[in-house]
Amino acid sequence: MQKIKVGIVGGTGYTGVELLRILSQHPNVELVAITSRSEAGVPVAQMFPSLRSVVDLCFSDPNSGLLETCHVVFFATPHGVAMAQTPALLAQGVRVIDLGADFRIKDAAVFEQWYKIPHTCTEVLAEAAYGLTELNRDAVKIARVVANPGCYPTTMQLGLYPLLKNQLADLSQVIADCKSGISGAGRKAEVGTLFSESSDSMKAYGVTGHRHTPETVAQLNQFADAPVNLIFTPHLIPMIRGMHSTLYVRLNDAGQALGNAQIQALFEQTYAQEAFVDVMPWGSHPETRSVRGSNMLRMALQRHGNLLIVLVVQDNLVKGASGQAVQNMNAMFGLSETTGLQTVALMP
Amino acid sequence: MQKIKVGIVGGTGYTGVELLRILSQHPNVELVAITSRSEAGVPVAQMFPSLRSVVDLCFSDPNSGLLETCHVVFFATPHGVAMAQTPALLAQGVRVIDLGADFRIKDAAVFEQWYKIPHTCTEVLAEAAYGLTELNRDAVKIARVVANPGCYPTTMQLGLYPLLKNQLADLSQVIADCKSGISGAGRKAEVGTLFSESSDSMKAYGVTGHRHTPETVAQLNQFADAPVNLIFTPHLIPMIRGMHSTLYVRLNDAGQALGNAQIQALFEQTYAQEAFVDVMPWGSHPETRSVRGSNMLRMALQRHGNLLIVLVVQDNLVKGASGQAVQNMNAMFGLSETTGLQTVALMP
Amino acid sequence: MQKIKVGIVGGTGYTGVELLRILSQHPNVELVAITSRSEAGVPVAQMFPSLRSVVDLCFSDPNSGLLETCHVVFFATPHGVAMAQTPALLAQGVRVIDLGADFRIKDAAVFEQWYKIPHTCTEVLAEAAYGLTELNRDAVKIARVVANPGCYPTTMQLGLYPLLKNQLADLSQVIADCKSGISGAGRKAEVGTLFSESSDSMKAYGVTGHRHTPETVAQLNQFADAPVNLIFTPHLIPMIRGMHSTLYVRLNDAGQALGNAQIQALFEQTYAQEAFVDVMPWGSHPETRSVRGSNMLRMALQRHGNLLIVLVVQDNLVKGASGQAVQNMNAMFGLSETTGLQTVALMP
Amino acid sequence: MQKIKVGIVGGTGYTGVELLRILSQHPNVELVAITSRSEAGVPVAQMFPSLRSVVDLCFSDPNSGLLETCHVVFFATPHGVAMAQTPALLAQGVRVIDLGADFRIKDAAVFEQWYKIPHTCTEVLAEAAYGLTELNRDAVKIARVVANPGCYPTTMQLGLYPLLKNQLADLSQVIADCKSGISGAGRKAEVGTLFSESSDSMKAYGVTGHRHTPETVAQLNQFADAPVNLIFTPHLIPMIRGMHSTLYVRLNDAGQALGNAQIQALFEQTYAQEAFVDVMPWGSHPETRSVRGSNMLRMALQRHGNLLIVLVVQDNLVKGASGQAVQNMNAMFGLSETTGLQTVALMP
Repeated sequence: MQKIKVGIVGGTGYTGVELLRILSQHPNVELVAITSRSEAGVPVAQMFPSLRSVVDLCFSDPNSGLLETCHVVFFATPHGVAMAQTPALLAQGVRVIDLGADFRIKDAAVFEQWYKIPHTCTEVLAEAAYGLTELNRDAVKIARVVANPGCYPTTMQLGLYPLLKNQLADLSQVIADCKSGISGAGRKAEVGTLFSESSDSMKAYGVTGHRHTPETVAQLNQFADAPVNLIFTPHLIPMIRGMHSTLYVRLNDAGQALGNAQIQALFEQTYAQEAFVDVMPWGSHPETRSVRGSNMLRMALQRHGNLLIVLVVQDNLVKGASGQAVQNMNAMFGLSETTGLQTVALMP
Repeated sequence: MQKIKVGIVGGTGYTGVELLRILSQHPNVELVAITSRSEAGVPVAQMFPSLRSVVDLCFSDPNSGLLETCHVVFFATPHGVAMAQTPALLAQGVRVIDLGADFRIKDAAVFEQWYKIPHTCTEVLAEAAYGLTELNRDAVKIARVVANPGCYPTTMQLGLYPLLKNQLADLSQVIADCKSGISGAGRKAEVGTLFSESSDSMKAYGVTGHRHTPETVAQLNQFADAPVNLIFTPHLIPMIRGMHSTLYVRLNDAGQALGNAQIQALFEQTYAQEAFVDVMPWGSHPETRSVRGSNMLRMALQRHGNLLIVLVVQDNLVKGASGQAVQNMNAMFGLSETTGLQTVALMP
Repeated sequence: MQKIKVGIVGGTGYTGVELLRILSQHPNVELVAITSRSEAGVPVAQMFPSLRSVVDLCFSDPNSGLLETCHVVFFATPHGVAMAQTPALLAQGVRVIDLGADFRIKDAAVFEQWYKIPHTCTEVLAEAAYGLTELNRDAVKIARVVANPGCYPTTMQLGLYPLLKNQLADLSQVIADCKSGISGAGRKAEVGTLFSESSDSMKAYGVTGHRHTPETVAQLNQFADAPVNLIFTPHLIPMIRGMHSTLYVRLNDAGQALGNAQIQALFEQTYAQEAFVDVMPWGSHPETRSVRGSNMLRMALQRHGNLLIVLVVQDNLVKGASGQAVQNMNAMFGLSETTGLQTVALMP
Repeated sequence: MQKIKVGIVGGTGYTGVELLRILSQHPNVELVAITSRSEAGVPVAQMFPSLRSVVDLCFSDPNSGLLETCHVVFFATPHGVAMAQTPALLAQGVRVIDLGADFRIKDAAVFEQWYKIPHTCTEVLAEAAYGLTELNRDAVKIARVVANPGCYPTTMQLGLYPLLKNQLADLSQVIADCKSGISGAGRKAEVGTLFSESSDSMKAYGVTGHRHTPETVAQLNQFADAPVNLIFTPHLIPMIRGMHSTLYVRLNDAGQALGNAQIQALFEQTYAQEAFVDVMPWGSHPETRSVRGSNMLRMALQRHGNLLIVLVVQDNLVKGASGQAVQNMNAMFGLSETTGLQTVALMP
């Protein structure tokens, strides 16, 4: 089979280097270009010694014309970049997977309210497929543009979907108390994420609202076919990778009518065919390290009376970002979704 | 002034060595004995080099008779020890502060249900004062026996008290999503708390119910003068010290009638005279490191519609254990509560 | 090609579970048995959730007879176990790779002096090949028994070999200041390696001599064909995986006659054909994370006058243990040494 | 007694906030001003919540005139700042303690070679006392300007002094393999010290020479009264605070003539009167956490033949910076050196 020619825009951040880790071992991929305006000409492996003898590309200038020769381009960039460059790529027949936020929120006004920039590419926004693969793979397969979900939204959606889809939840208040490793804050030089500021400590953040809220609410509303009042409280935890979402859902009358075994069965059946969603036995406590470096998302259930608690873990950089992006690429190009994604979690 | 003669039972665990750190610098204290059956005769500073040139005592045998010469004895022991030894100490006129669970739950049947041992000392249980100093100092001052609260319960009670006491909360569901540093698990050799098992990872635990639940519920019920349905989910976080409790309280009609400024004022007024409770400005994000090594507990408020979120941080070994125990000792012996407790948090 | 049937004795420690991580993805391996007396019957993935859907074996009793059906058995056990069980396996035609110390030191008296147990299997000791693959692969290929090197010794030997082999070093004093992540201490429940004891701190250990010394000295002496006075000081560093050895070698007259470029070239040429040894550019600072989870060992050189400093990093559980063991297995069974070992380091 | 009026220039870095932690509890100090051009007017406790209710000053403009009213001003600034502002302060009768490098190296040419800026204040340089208190307190007591030593140099000097002063060392090669916590890199926003870059990993750095070398060598030469060839290799360790220096000294003939007990006695006698130097029993392994937050420096000895190994630990921000600065202030103002410095290390 011909290899998929792949380009990456923004290869110097964590999701970019994680794409390189995964794609460099992908049997059906040929890495063609990794762009970085500031690092053009520098060998990728010079910046990331972990890639010595693995990736021999140099960063290339975004205007080098290489991206246009690709079958698919990943954007591992801050919001605003993908929407600026996607139309030209589409015109050349290049498909796009955006790991940023540009195409996640269908309502451009909502996007603008949260991201404080105008949306300049609404026609692409309209056609983009939301890339939570498990819940939207039919659209992903045929999409020219895929909006890869945010890390937090992935855990919240997969954890809540079985309850919302089956109308078992009291929608008036769904609480997501979420904890993220610090790599989620990216590779920018900032005081707050220095080792000496953020290790051996923790805190909540984003009190006035986190940008992953509108994306999540839009999807949850679709699952439930009704408005969901989501309370989302993110916390920063002193670990490199890993995300743990503790979801508190009040069961409605239909939900309360179900026994624990029935709810467990519902979750297991929902994800029975999924390679990357693991429903653990009732009452388990998933650890984030059990998915470190892997594309697996694990969840487990517990219950206090009419309150159901869903514990969800993933690696924020894999299933929460670059791994899911490759999973989407696999779907888009007719490959098995697990191709190149079977790395086992690193434990300890 | 005559010094308070102090004994410690169980000086080899974290709350014991933390008592030593604090009491060795306390201007009104004379350390008389630190007992450890297994380490009798060993200099304390040999086991804990941080105490070299600070504490020159050796561990002594519990039966040495030294404890009976003290004014007060701290139990930094697993449950069961304090109840076995307290009656004899009381008979000698020694006051007792128990950092364990033996005297925290007034209902002996509830104690037995959660701790799986018979309560052999119910007459002392009846007279013991619950040592959450801020909320019970009148009783503490005159108590012969003080039950020092658990670490989690301290954050939950101080964070919820203003709402419950003033009848502002919907009691049908109060959620406490709590995160603890690993020192909370103690200094026992166990696989689960090895560095390589618990660093760079996190998880929830105690799914079938944590022993701090009944103690907390009993107190919350008193505050509210009605039954409170508490959902308490503890998590283990890769940091040595520190506890962060995220409390989700649905406001009742009376609560919803209050504006944010009014709720903030209520919290500030409640704790205005307290040296060790810091109500931060509305919308703040307290960090656990801001209280590392200090007896301060900080909290901040935020709100989503009718849901109030209280963020509470403390050092689990200080305000959550040994610091509060010394605060109680100060109250019991007529000292300013802050004596010996003014250490500033270690930052970074 | 027929799969290699593999057994593992001692699957509950870190080198055991790391073997499972690697071997479960090895295209030429069939995992037949993982033994653990205490956990017999328990699914491996129950103890290690990272292996859910990856390894579906249960731990089996060591006496189940399964090991005898294997082509090769790995011992991931404390010293003493392999020497007790190897003869019987050899008698059945099973080859053995011991990750412990039983067959590393040819002189049984030296073994007994350091390990305080009699060596009961000296005839196997005599035939065992020392499995530092790069330096001894001819012997490894045909060996029935391979003694996999210790983690520290691997870094010291590969870092010093080019200098000693070419007679460039003053042998009267070679200093190895080595730093290890805490997983090197194993998965035993011990106070000293608890998170709260060993994180945010560091120390040297093994002042009276570390057991990796005699093994290393024996090999260095062979390289140099003369006695080497090795000063080896291990330190414990608060990281899960990773080893950094800082080697200080005084150049002898022949060594001092070489320029930096010549020494660099010597190292590069020595390892030019090696897939798992990376000589970085002169003056580089290898980071341990650049090999996290990978079988790569990296080194870099610097020089102060007549003192050469070699900086060496590896993942102590991979190249320092289980990865090198699989590399040896590949050599023993005629496979490319890189088979199943091409995992890219996890960064960040 | 009248309080010492104290000013701090550069209160937003780690040594600045550490000065605040210590000085705010110092019984003889009145904090008058903490300057920061960028943060003027901002309450100190807003930037550092750990100081809420402890320090109620705001950052003030460097030109406010407040510094001139002080008895002593600490510079917790990058090099270059102190030399620019010190002459004017001296002219007002204000004494100066510089935690930076401006006055550490008596030879201005050497300073300029390493720091790449001209030394504009050589007359002050000439009079400045080098503030390693234990070794130079007579000069410190009467100094108008004290150059507080670097963190690494403090460990190397105190660890080597007894050997060099007594002519027991082979000076042709002294190796200092030093390991520092990450707070040593300061509070600047830089990629290399982000949590996700520097946790769970380690590396050497400063291969081409670290700026603490010339300062250290100048002092060592004085101790030995002869040139010392120092090989100094710093490493970055994933811990917030703490420094561990492993010093390798070849004993000369006089040194080799001494038994271990004699060398141990020499070290103990050298520091017998020192409150902040702890010589542990022969063969001990000092842990950095045993001095976390304290001004104590601990050391221990071991020996391999003619090679003596000195293990030294300190908290890089306390004895390695701000604590030693306050120790110097105490000496300068006739106080006991331990005043305000008796905080016990935080363990765990």
